[in-house]
Amino acid sequence: MTSPSPLVSPATGAARDAALVLAALTPSERGALLRDLSDVLREHTGQLVTLAQEETHLDETRLRGEVLRTCMQLDMFAEITEEGAYLDVMIDRADTEALPAPRPDVRRMLVPLGPVAVFTASNFPFAFSVLGGDTASAIAAGCPVIIKAHEGHPRLTDLTAALAAAVLPTGVLSVVHGRDAGRALVTDPVVQAVGFTGSTAGGRALFDLAAQRPDPIPFYGELGSLNPVIITPGALAARGADLVGEYIGSVTRSQGQLCTKPGLLFLPERHGLENSLHEAISAVPPAPMLGPWIAEAYSATLDDLAAHAAVRRIGAVPTGNKGTEQRAHSPSAALLTVTADDLRNHPELLRECFGPASMVVTYTSSEDLLATLRKIPGSLTATVHGEENTDEELVRNIWSTLRAGRLIWNDWPTGVAVTRAMHHGGPWPATTSPLHTSVGGTAINRWLRPIAYQNMPEALLPQALQTSNPWGVRRRTAP
Amino acid sequence: MTSPSPLVSPATGAARDAALVLAALTPSERGALLRDLSDVLREHTGQLVTLAQEETHLDETRLRGEVLRTCMQLDMFAEITEEGAYLDVMIDRADTEALPAPRPDVRRMLVPLGPVAVFTASNFPFAFSVLGGDTASAIAAGCPVIIKAHEGHPRLTDLTAALAAAVLPTGVLSVVHGRDAGRALVTDPVVQAVGFTGSTAGGRALFDLAAQRPDPIPFYGELGSLNPVIITPGALAARGADLVGEYIGSVTRSQGQLCTKPGLLFLPERHGLENSLHEAISAVPPAPMLGPWIAEAYSATLDDLAAHAAVRRIGAVPTGNKGTEQRAHSPSAALLTVTADDLRNHPELLRECFGPASMVVTYTSSEDLLATLRKIPGSLTATVHGEENTDEELVRNIWSTLRAGRLIWNDWPTGVAVTRAMHHGGPWPATTSPLHTSVGGTAINRWLRPIAYQNMPEALLPQALQTSNPWGVRRRTAP
Repeated sequence: MTSPSPLVSPATGAARDAALVLAALTPSERGALLRDLSDVLREHTGQLVTLAQEETHLDETRLRGEVLRTCMQLDMFAEITEEGAYLDVMIDRADTEALPAPRPDVRRMLVPLGPVAVFTASNFPFAFSVLGGDTASAIAAGCPVIIKAHEGHPRLTDLTAALAAAVLPTGVLSVVHGRDAGRALVTDPVVQAVGFTGSTAGGRALFDLAAQRPDPIPFYGELGSLNPVIITPGALAARGADLVGEYIGSVTRSQGQLCTKPGLLFLPERHGLENSLHEAISAVPPAPMLGPWIAEAYSATLDDLAAHAAVRRIGAVPTGNKGTEQRAHSPSAALLTVTADDLRNHPELLRECFGPASMVVTYTSSEDLLATLRKIPGSLTATVHGEENTDEELVRNIWSTLRAGRLIWNDWPTGVAVTRAMHHGGPWPATTSPLHTSVGGTAINRWLRPIAYQNMPEALLPQALQTSNPWGVRRRTAP
Repeated sequence: MTSPSPLVSPATGAARDAALVLAALTPSERGALLRDLSDVLREHTGQLVTLAQEETHLDETRLRGEVLRTCMQLDMFAEITEEGAYLDVMIDRADTEALPAPRPDVRRMLVPLGPVAVFTASNFPFAFSVLGGDTASAIAAGCPVIIKAHEGHPRLTDLTAALAAAVLPTGVLSVVHGRDAGRALVTDPVVQAVGFTGSTAGGRALFDLAAQRPDPIPFYGELGSLNPVIITPGALAARGADLVGEYIGSVTRSQGQLCTKPGLLFLPERHGLENSLHEAISAVPPAPMLGPWIAEAYSATLDDLAAHAAVRRIGAVPTGNKGTEQRAHSPSAALLTVTADDLRNHPELLRECFGPASMVVTYTSSEDLLATLRKIPGSLTATVHGEENTDEELVRNIWSTLRAGRLIWNDWPTGVAVTRAMHHGGPWPATTSPLHTSVGGTAINRWLRPIAYQNMPEALLPQALQTSNPWGVRRRTAP
């Protein structure tokens, strides 16, 4: 075992004790905790949003929407806990006639993993932060949470955690600050799993720490994604001009600081939309990014990509914005363009540029398109704009070529619906764990492990497994 | 990406092509493949068992039972595929009134991960080998399998694979031999997940390789386990003598070469059973182990443990068996004993001894027992023999202290029932992945990842997600 660090041991010690308290609650008691957290957010929305605006520069409308989404996410997990179907109960009764040997009574359910660590994101100060999806799903599962605060909104983190602590049992939710504390959390023997939303480099470093423990633990990282969008020749002909506006809207929403931002737009060559694309992107007013560190990383990545011999900017660099103070905080939106052939031969271009920029990729044929899509790494999303009657074969080929967690038809990847069926995940490097999601009802699965109870009398079984089914949960019983 | 090795690229190349073939099959077509595999085993049982006896020295009755169990496992996964509930389909219909934003139609299901590698076990030449649970569950999920043959039964592996290949599409099942090929499999870019059954050291080395890939992949290792068994004072008084016989039977079954063998038996101090234990263990005739390499490792570990200052043998070392040729192949069964206090203060004693040996641990009180159980690493199983009416509180404390995948009451951990609800897993070092099992119906979950389809017209949806539900699978639909 690794030794616990004093940076985190007060939090992990309290979480270890709280794990027993949480696990002993009934589903309706755990549901009530989540509804209390939702109420706390609703009641303090004004105060929280004001602080979030100061720390993140996101606008009030967006932040109010995000608080509402976060409340509904807590409510959804309250429902999921109360229903109990997530326990995935299976009961196989004893069978003395079974071959090759008589079979005992075996009853299986899911139980909480124990205390977990959650690294919050810069770009969603509510929905992927202290009371966001990772925390809501972990508490729903019965796991205490230790938050590693993102350095982009430390005061909001502490305020949210203080409000939450007032309605939670001691130790169920704690906060630590700083990179050293983050690393100490991942290696602390009390911590049984980690949730993370952030960059590929940062996520990979923590994933490696988790995998190198004497006792490796699951690490659920939601990392980087290119989110390709393909426009078919049919869709281009039918509504190319409309698609330009929608595309620019999706690229620049929240200043492009979304993990589902379309990073690649595939258009047929000689698409004739270059002027429209240039006008639309130029019309987007520069707006402050989350912080100077993000604005600098955005500008540096954009400059690197634009300097590549195979790449060209769509339109000129906006004058008056280059090299100025403004550029350091509110860089302009930008479009680059490259041919599909060049993109697939230059894998160094397959790189996320987090911010309001995207790459238009021109393709000459279905073969050219598919050969290039084959080179794109795992993504959170993949989108096709097409015509149902004429593009069916092409679209099937696109779906079987791309590796992504969500496939979208005639819609845009930004704006992830928080519903039971949503999947927000995908093959590496979209995430570290392709089986799991950080949004949607099944996010709870990350924090649970099965136990089978063999030949156990009713009085010693957990309630969910008792023959009388006192909680009334959905179960699979055989024979 | 790592470069593929020529040791495995013929197999992985064929598996990549076969993945498309398998994924395109309907559930009933995939079910039929599994039933064909089951038939092949049944038809060739005599020939296979003869070869298995030669290579593993396990007896015919045990091997015939294992073939039957393996057939029933294939049949169970055929049923699971045909039912389709494993696809975990969820459908959330569009909602234009939803807050904070209108919601599109989102439909989620599980899809195959792609080609997977399976490392087979020495001790189950059928049930954890070429057509064992890992392979059956992976093919059921739609994933081609590349087997890394165990060096303990290479000819049986090749014969089984050749018989299977005759009824499977090309590339669905291949075999590679040798450690270098095994390592090359884990790092091959085509391989998307790994299943492994074997030692903690071997499994950890391969887990590390999988985690260190440029694109890390899931590694499901079933490793070592101490499988503690606790006898309460009540059970000792009521049926101590009977329990001795059952315990020795469980320890020495298949020469103790089972991952669920009880490695620790907790008895109240002054249990008075030492003579019975000695007589029972001495009456077990030495029998050949799987191979000299296992017999040597067993004897070496046993000698190490027995030489510890805190440990004592129960009874003398059998004469005539020490230092002889026989000892190298057919070592005697053995019992050691230690106090609970010494065990918890000497973690070096918490070590699996794979073979027909076990440690009797004497405890002075419930506190002494629980303090020691707290030190036991994650196990596949934990067992209590107790009296329902008097031991309830103690047993609840035991269950909340031990970390194990299967909790057993008044029964024994060996002889794992292959049923839907069975869980054969547990926290590290029992496995590398506490969320998963290598036995039971949910073993299929290891080879699947979710995809959400957003706003997709009926014609472009996979059949399982179409509104008409042509396969008739169980689905969760909302609202």
